[in-house]
Amino acid sequence: MITRLSSEEARRLLEAGRVGRLGCVYEGAPYVVPVNYVTDGENVLIHSLSGRKIEALRANPRACLQVDEVDDPCHWRSVIAFGTFEELSDSRERDGAAERLVSRFPGLTPVESVPVHDGQSSVIIFRIRIREVTGVAEK
Amino acid sequence: MITRLSSEEARRLLEAGRVGRLGCVYEGAPYVVPVNYVTDGENVLIHSLSGRKIEALRANPRACLQVDEVDDPCHWRSVIAFGTFEELSDSRERDGAAERLVSRFPGLTPVESVPVHDGQSSVIIFRIRIREVTGVAEK
Repeated sequence: MITRLSSEEARRLLEAGRVGRLGCVYEGAPYVVPVNYVTDGENVLIHSLSGRKIEALRANPRACLQVDEVDDPCHWRSVIAFGTFEELSDSRERDGAAERLVSRFPGLTPVESVPVHDGQSSVIIFRIRIREVTGVAEK
Repeated sequence: MITRLSSEEARRLLEAGRVGRLGCVYEGAPYVVPVNYVTDGENVLIHSLSGRKIEALRANPRACLQVDEVDDPCHWRSVIAFGTFEELSDSRERDGAAERLVSRFPGLTPVESVPVHDGQSSVIIFRIRIREVTGVAEK
């Protein structure tokens, strides 16, 4: 039976996750990639190299992050956070976000974890400003 | 280091998977949900109750299915199949697809697994006709 998660359950699942699937729209078509993330409930923080998802999000900032826990094909919980892409360019915001990502993912390689001040980094750090979180479960 | 998978590696990963994340576009915004699927390499077969993803795909048939194997945040492989949504309404096609899904997911509940002939079923069976499969890995 598929049931809707309460808002609190949905947010708990989002906050507990580490890997999510980022959805964006690229030239009118959906595009989905796995990402490591950390969230405080208001924003989702993500780092990335440049590529199609960044190109897509710069052109159309509507984004979603889907996170799930799948026990088996008939027992799972899934949550989706809808929001808006915002690239971090201010060095203090970037440093703060990088610190939170490194603290959540100690295995990040130096090139990804080092805060960048020269504006030349190929590492993009962005947030999704969360507008709505919903979730469902099958038991 | 992130590398591109060969076409053959990408297709193998897609064919080995059982749970993927279906991406579609709903009113101009991305929408992503986990799905159980089976594929023969040309089409991805999926079953679903009605809801937002079906509404989205009927309005805009551009779809993708993202499948990954994540060992840890720095070791993962991910593939994305791009294609077009096609709802199965012909009873022979539906029966064949339902059989393949049940054979892959023996735990499907009867209401989902029983082929439906009366056209009144609330279970939607559809395929994504695959146009392109690409993949990347981080090692």
